[in-house]
Amino acid sequence: MSADFQNWTTSCQARIETFLEARLPAIDCVPERLHKAMRYSVLGGGKRVRPLLSFAAGELAGANVERVTTVAAAVELIHAYSLVHDDLPCMDDDILRRGKPTCHIEFDEATALLTGDSLQTLAFEIMAEKRLTDEPQTQLEMIAQLAFASGSRGMAGGQAFDLESIGKTLSLPELEYMHIHKTGALIRAAVMLGARCGNRLNNDHLAKLDHFAKCVGLAFQVVDDLLDAEATTATLGKTAGKDAENNKPTYVSILGISEARELAQKLQYDADQALNSFDDGASRLRQVTDFIIKRKF
Amino acid sequence: MSADFQNWTTSCQARIETFLEARLPAIDCVPERLHKAMRYSVLGGGKRVRPLLSFAAGELAGANVERVTTVAAAVELIHAYSLVHDDLPCMDDDILRRGKPTCHIEFDEATALLTGDSLQTLAFEIMAEKRLTDEPQTQLEMIAQLAFASGSRGMAGGQAFDLESIGKTLSLPELEYMHIHKTGALIRAAVMLGARCGNRLNNDHLAKLDHFAKCVGLAFQVVDDLLDAEATTATLGKTAGKDAENNKPTYVSILGISEARELAQKLQYDADQALNSFDDGASRLRQVTDFIIKRKF
Repeated sequence: MSADFQNWTTSCQARIETFLEARLPAIDCVPERLHKAMRYSVLGGGKRVRPLLSFAAGELAGANVERVTTVAAAVELIHAYSLVHDDLPCMDDDILRRGKPTCHIEFDEATALLTGDSLQTLAFEIMAEKRLTDEPQTQLEMIAQLAFASGSRGMAGGQAFDLESIGKTLSLPELEYMHIHKTGALIRAAVMLGARCGNRLNNDHLAKLDHFAKCVGLAFQVVDDLLDAEATTATLGKTAGKDAENNKPTYVSILGISEARELAQKLQYDADQALNSFDDGASRLRQVTDFIIKRKF
Repeated sequence: MSADFQNWTTSCQARIETFLEARLPAIDCVPERLHKAMRYSVLGGGKRVRPLLSFAAGELAGANVERVTTVAAAVELIHAYSLVHDDLPCMDDDILRRGKPTCHIEFDEATALLTGDSLQTLAFEIMAEKRLTDEPQTQLEMIAQLAFASGSRGMAGGQAFDLESIGKTLSLPELEYMHIHKTGALIRAAVMLGARCGNRLNNDHLAKLDHFAKCVGLAFQVVDDLLDAEATTATLGKTAGKDAENNKPTYVSILGISEARELAQKLQYDADQALNSFDDGASRLRQVTDFIIKRKF
C-alpha cells in the first residue's frame, strides 16, 4: 500500500469514526444499555471498506466530503446492524467479531436484537436529516436506493437465501446470486450513493460505475471465502474456518483455493476495466479495490 | 360505533390492506420464504389503529388520501416489524398474535428476525419512493421524524426500557416514560405524519395535535393493560394475562383496575380538549380516540 493511499485510508476512517462517535447517542442517554451496545457494535473496529468505497466514488464525482461522510456512515450503520443480527444464535451463532465478543455475548440477546434494529433506523434517520445533494428529490431517491439495497430483495434477502442454502450444493451461478445480494447490494449502494453526493454522472458512466461496484462486491466475497479457509481466528478477529464447519457453500468449496484466487484476480481486472472511461478521477477506486483484494483480514 | 364511522373505518382498513398487499413482494419472488413470512406478519389482521389515526389526521389537514395511505402503511410496517421482533423467544417469547401463531412459530427464528428487519427497511423505502407532500424537503423531514420515533430514543428505546424494568417496581412517571416511548412515539408519528401530508398547520395547531397524540398514545396503553388483565386470549387474539405472569409493571399493577379505567377516561378527555381549536375537521380524530378507548381487543 502506498504511503499516499495509507494516509488517505487513515483519514477517511478517522472521519467516519468521528462522525459516528458524535452521532450515536451517548452512553448516558436513556436507555443506557441499548446505547452502550449500539456504540460497542459500531465504534472502534472494522476496516470500513464500504465507507472507503463511498469516499473514493465521491472523489470521482467531485462530491463534498461532508455529504459523503454522512452517506458512508449510513451505509456502515446498515452493515453494523446486519453483523449484530447475523451473529445471533438463531443465525450464525458467533461469539467473536472484530476481535471482541459479539454484541449478544457482551450484552444479551434481546439487547443485541434491539441494537441491530436501532442501528438500521439510525441509518435512515441520518440519510434524511442532513443535506446530501443539492436536490432534495435526489436525496429521496438515494434513501430509496439504500433501502432497496438493504431489504428483502437486497442484503436481507441474500441472508435469507444463505440460510436456506446451508448443507445444500449450490451451483456457481446460485452462489453468485446469493452474494450479489448478501454482500454485493450494500457495496454497490456504498459506491453509487457516494457518487450521487457529487456531480451528476451521465448514464454510461453510471452503468460503468455500477458494473465496477458489482465486480468489487463479488471480489470482496471471494476474498472473504479465501480468508475464512486460510487465515487464523487471531488474524481475522472473527472465527475462522466457520464455512467448512457449517457446511456452507463458498467459492472455495465450489472452486477450490487456487481457482477462487484466480476468480478474485479476474474480478479485479474487470473492475479496473470498468473504470477506464473515467481518466484520473478513478485512481482512488482502483486503490480501494486493490486493498480489498489484498487484505489479510 | 356509528354506521358512518364504521364505514369509514372499514374503508380505511381496506385501503391499507390493498396498498400493503400490492407493495409487499409477492410470495413467488425470491427468497420466497422470507417474502411469505413478511406477508404473513403484515396482511389480514390487526386493527390498524395507527393508520386510522393517520387518515383522521390527514382529513384534518385536507391531505390527499393516496399520500396518507403511503404514510399510514409505512407506520404500520414499523409496527408490524416491532411485533415480530417483540414476540421472539429472547424478548416476550409469545406464540400467538392476531389469533395466529407468531412469525417465528409459523416459520423459524432466523426467518422472523429477517422478516422484522426487512419490514423496517420497506417502511423507509416506501416513505422515500412516492411523493408524500408538495415539498421534497418536507418529505425528508417526515422520514427523519418516522426514524426518530422508531429508533433508540423512540419505540425501540421504550422496548429496551421495558426489558430492563421486568421484575422492578416502577413509579407512575417511570411507567409513563416507558410507554411514551414504546407505544406513544409511533402513535404520535402516525398522527403527525398523516397531518403533514396535507396543508401546513400553524405552530399552535401542531402543538395541539401533538398533545392530542400524546394523550391518545398513553390512553391506548392504559387500555392495553386493562385488556391484558381482563380479557381472554380468545378475544384478544394474543396471550392474555402475560403482564402479571411476567411480573411486568403496568397501569393495572400500579393503579388497580378502577383507577386505570379512570385514567383512560381522563386521557380521552384531555385528548378531546386538545382538539377544540380545530372545529369540525377534528371529528374523525375524536371518533378514532373513542374507538381506541372502547375497543375490546
